[in-house]
Amino acid sequence: MNSARFRAQLAFIVEVDRLKGVLRRSTIMDGSRRENTAEHSWHVALMAFTLAEHANEPVDPLRVVTMLLVHDVVEIDAGDTYAYDEHSRATQQRREEEAARRIFGLLPEDQAAEYTALWREFDAATTPDARMANAVDRLMPLLHNYYDGGKTWQTNGVTRAQVDARMAILADGSDALWQEAQRIIDRSVAEGLLTVE
Amino acid sequence: MNSARFRAQLAFIVEVDRLKGVLRRSTIMDGSRRENTAEHSWHVALMAFTLAEHANEPVDPLRVVTMLLVHDVVEIDAGDTYAYDEHSRATQQRREEEAARRIFGLLPEDQAAEYTALWREFDAATTPDARMANAVDRLMPLLHNYYDGGKTWQTNGVTRAQVDARMAILADGSDALWQEAQRIIDRSVAEGLLTVE
Repeated sequence: MNSARFRAQLAFIVEVDRLKGVLRRSTIMDGSRRENTAEHSWHVALMAFTLAEHANEPVDPLRVVTMLLVHDVVEIDAGDTYAYDEHSRATQQRREEEAARRIFGLLPEDQAAEYTALWREFDAATTPDARMANAVDRLMPLLHNYYDGGKTWQTNGVTRAQVDARMAILADGSDALWQEAQRIIDRSVAEGLLTVE
Repeated sequence: MNSARFRAQLAFIVEVDRLKGVLRRSTIMDGSRRENTAEHSWHVALMAFTLAEHANEPVDPLRVVTMLLVHDVVEIDAGDTYAYDEHSRATQQRREEEAARRIFGLLPEDQAAEYTALWREFDAATTPDARMANAVDRLMPLLHNYYDGGKTWQTNGVTRAQVDARMAILADGSDALWQEAQRIIDRSVAEGLLTVE
């Protein structure tokens, strides 16, 4: 065994533990506390594996799942960027690029390149695997917002038009997921959880 | 699209959110709070993908990763069973069987069978994929215990002999992981984090 290689891999594993300390805006579904990015990553990875059959185009489940396992690791340095915060989204790319260099850079060179490429592919959302991964990653917060009674929407003054715009990308990955998102949005408005303007 | 099927899949996804509320004995590595089983599952899945090359026998990374994504879902009903608590381990199997029936039973029949089979395979630890998944799942708490300064060992009066016995299974999945475990145990004893008796 190449022990320098193994040590580099373990250093990465130990470092990413810090993702458990990055808090997202949304709460876990019972509303009791804010969700962290590590548990979110588990949830979307399992969701993608479960819903892979609904992708518009055939996908490689391993690539979709691992893309989702690593897609938010950069938040350890760059923090969570709230979907509806335009100011913070402007600097997001630079902050995340630096984070990717440092964190994936802990890995042996070949794996650093592999994980960075998966992360970039997710972000670009131009391959079938990445389109499906993005669809799952966008649908999940909608489920959270619906199940916590729309609290996160109300706190941040989010309207239906903003949610609709945010969900449009789902149709690129999965019509089935997009249709479900429409149903949940309609229900959220009908139940008074989400305002129209 | 078969919408009953899709609804069943989403019901499972929503249900497993509760894994975020199941607390393990160990803390996250900075020692600030107890770890929950959802974030643990993310961490071991990513670890398995990163270390797959060190398996004694060739493994299918997708099966190892998905096994780890679902392996602890039963804890939603059955709770986390502490590795060194013999009393609670005696009833673990029955409690987890009932949990698997209920929780995987939310899925469409074919997926319920698939996830149950993955969970059983992990538990039996007789295939190369399951042996590697188990090796990763056992090494992770050792890393946690080492990085939190042995607090969980000390609180629960765990000795080196118990840790050695618990780690023996690693050699079935990966000699490299087993050797690393030995090094961490030696270091833990030398640094006074773990007592010999």
